[in-house]
Amino acid sequence: MSFISVLTDFGIDQEYVGVCKAVMLSIHPGIAFIDISHTVPPYDIKGAALMLKNFVRFSPVGVHVVVVDPGVGTGRRGIAIETERGDFLVGPDNGVLMWAAETLIVKKVVALDNKEYMLKHVSASFHGRDIFAPAAAHLSAGVQLENLGSLIDPKSLHLLPHPAVRRDIHAVTGHVLRIDRFGNIQTTIDAQIIRERKEVGIEIGGHKLRIPVVRTFDEVLKGELLLYKDSDGLLTLALNQGEAAKTLKIKTKYEIKIFL
Amino acid sequence: MSFISVLTDFGIDQEYVGVCKAVMLSIHPGIAFIDISHTVPPYDIKGAALMLKNFVRFSPVGVHVVVVDPGVGTGRRGIAIETERGDFLVGPDNGVLMWAAETLIVKKVVALDNKEYMLKHVSASFHGRDIFAPAAAHLSAGVQLENLGSLIDPKSLHLLPHPAVRRDIHAVTGHVLRIDRFGNIQTTIDAQIIRERKEVGIEIGGHKLRIPVVRTFDEVLKGELLLYKDSDGLLTLALNQGEAAKTLKIKTKYEIKIFL
Amino acid sequence: MSFISVLTDFGIDQEYVGVCKAVMLSIHPGIAFIDISHTVPPYDIKGAALMLKNFVRFSPVGVHVVVVDPGVGTGRRGIAIETERGDFLVGPDNGVLMWAAETLIVKKVVALDNKEYMLKHVSASFHGRDIFAPAAAHLSAGVQLENLGSLIDPKSLHLLPHPAVRRDIHAVTGHVLRIDRFGNIQTTIDAQIIRERKEVGIEIGGHKLRIPVVRTFDEVLKGELLLYKDSDGLLTLALNQGEAAKTLKIKTKYEIKIFL
Repeated sequence: MSFISVLTDFGIDQEYVGVCKAVMLSIHPGIAFIDISHTVPPYDIKGAALMLKNFVRFSPVGVHVVVVDPGVGTGRRGIAIETERGDFLVGPDNGVLMWAAETLIVKKVVALDNKEYMLKHVSASFHGRDIFAPAAAHLSAGVQLENLGSLIDPKSLHLLPHPAVRRDIHAVTGHVLRIDRFGNIQTTIDAQIIRERKEVGIEIGGHKLRIPVVRTFDEVLKGELLLYKDSDGLLTLALNQGEAAKTLKIKTKYEIKIFL
Repeated sequence: MSFISVLTDFGIDQEYVGVCKAVMLSIHPGIAFIDISHTVPPYDIKGAALMLKNFVRFSPVGVHVVVVDPGVGTGRRGIAIETERGDFLVGPDNGVLMWAAETLIVKKVVALDNKEYMLKHVSASFHGRDIFAPAAAHLSAGVQLENLGSLIDPKSLHLLPHPAVRRDIHAVTGHVLRIDRFGNIQTTIDAQIIRERKEVGIEIGGHKLRIPVVRTFDEVLKGELLLYKDSDGLLTLALNQGEAAKTLKIKTKYEIKIFL
Repeated sequence: MSFISVLTDFGIDQEYVGVCKAVMLSIHPGIAFIDISHTVPPYDIKGAALMLKNFVRFSPVGVHVVVVDPGVGTGRRGIAIETERGDFLVGPDNGVLMWAAETLIVKKVVALDNKEYMLKHVSASFHGRDIFAPAAAHLSAGVQLENLGSLIDPKSLHLLPHPAVRRDIHAVTGHVLRIDRFGNIQTTIDAQIIRERKEVGIEIGGHKLRIPVVRTFDEVLKGELLLYKDSDGLLTLALNQGEAAKTLKIKTKYEIKIFL
């Protein structure tokens, strides 16, 4: 393995991510790192799970370590998952790895319980540094998964529910999955439902609107709303040359209804 | 080529930059990345063009990919420019590459229209991932420019006007180019005009001031304004041990007049 | 040396860090970089010194360059320190390197005064680019410390006072060292003093409280305060599933008193 991708909620203002990389370099000199993000909202397991899933779809086989870990120091297990194609996913057993694991298909899993592959002193609050970084580095250096701990049943892993989308006769109801830096409103709804449609009625944040369905923003005038299939294949609401989320006052998790 | 420098307005809160790097690693395993910035204000073509120009002045020959792309999915072309010294500049044909291209001197240009060097599925909204990252990675791996698409006339490229500086008999009038994290006000005016001067009169944001011209901040007292030639060779207004922009309430694009 | 770690207060919105890396790559092609942080508050020497110290404790032998440099362009020296185990610490002689240097033990020091190892044109305001980055890159490429400048007496270095902790008969008084992204309040007080304690009385920000001493957050109920030994070995005040700093309205540098 020639790289480790790293995803955390540590922020970029302190040395925490750098320290984890230092630990990994100590174990595997010369290993390269790819940052997925470190400004995941604190403890946002779903947000991180989504980013990891989107990342691994385009990543070569590698080691991917995630530290979004509200339960650090409690009973929750640390795990490493080997995938069918040969990746290793390392992190807490709180669901954060699972959407990526489902995408890549789980081959086997261990609980990270072998102290020989942790730092000598394991703190109660920084398992990223003391347990997960060492595990990722050892795996990238060629250590076998089984060495890191006890094999466990993949069925015993903590699952993460997928965003619910409800289909009625007249409408599909989903939620705002996330809002990007451009104010585009990505929903949990598969963009398949707007195929063949020229426009649809929607309901969101108290607004009832009819919105044109387009492939590119410039099919509507400046300042007009539009619906499109975004680069993740999801139905997304945007404003040509503006910020849809700000204009409509929409936030993450708001409900959105698409009338069929 | 051993590295690809990356400049985008994707922000750092989502996985977008990481995904582009994953795509590049898939095509060119082991390639290294240098981040120029990913928090360019959304769609700020001039801001990114300036940063790229400043970067390439100090960079070894490399591949430089820029994704600041308000026109993604519209008719605007994707391009790759080969420079005299052997760099490749990859990005949208909206001017963002042009100040760096002028600095490095354009040798030849292609429109990125060969689908064989794109991802299999090209989305309408994420050409960074689907077109520009693959092009950059292929070039860094040794693919010839001509393979990526049709040669086009460099004269057909979308130009980016340079900041205008107006010279009258009594004054030079420019603008605030940018304000850095320390509150220093970088102007569009070449610092040559203050050579040999001890102090000059300026007009900015409703203030009329006489400001000492110095080489280093400590030539004035704490809390005093100063003018100096900054590390880009531009006339810059600062406050010793304070934030000039905040104190004078100055923002980017404000006009500044220097009396001769 | 296979990597250079980089710590600055340049922010991430401009190209400054990238430019420093470009300079280093020009001098030492293929060298890798580890970012410690670039959003150190402007000129916060103590904050950066703390991060560097925490980083080097876990880092393999390497070159570490720090640019937090309020005195750039004034008389302050640039220095490079060789440590007992073989690291090189590069930066301004303003104390920012000293806590790490004490941890790693100083072997010898030079003032960076040999112009042959600087960029050709040295600006008055960007020594990170023109002096420190070149020095770090040359050292990582195998240039001997003595080549970069004159050997100086380590005793002549600008020291950085350590945070004072006052011990009375009844109490230990320290300060808030920093507040992390999760709202945890890290103090300057060694966690040793709460060993063997079940709870202690504290005084901070006008609050007088009795707080349980725990090893992990889940030993108290949701919404309850707790004291623990954090991953740096320091006494830290936190709120289970909440932000202690926000709830108690605590900021960096506030005094905290622990009653014995």
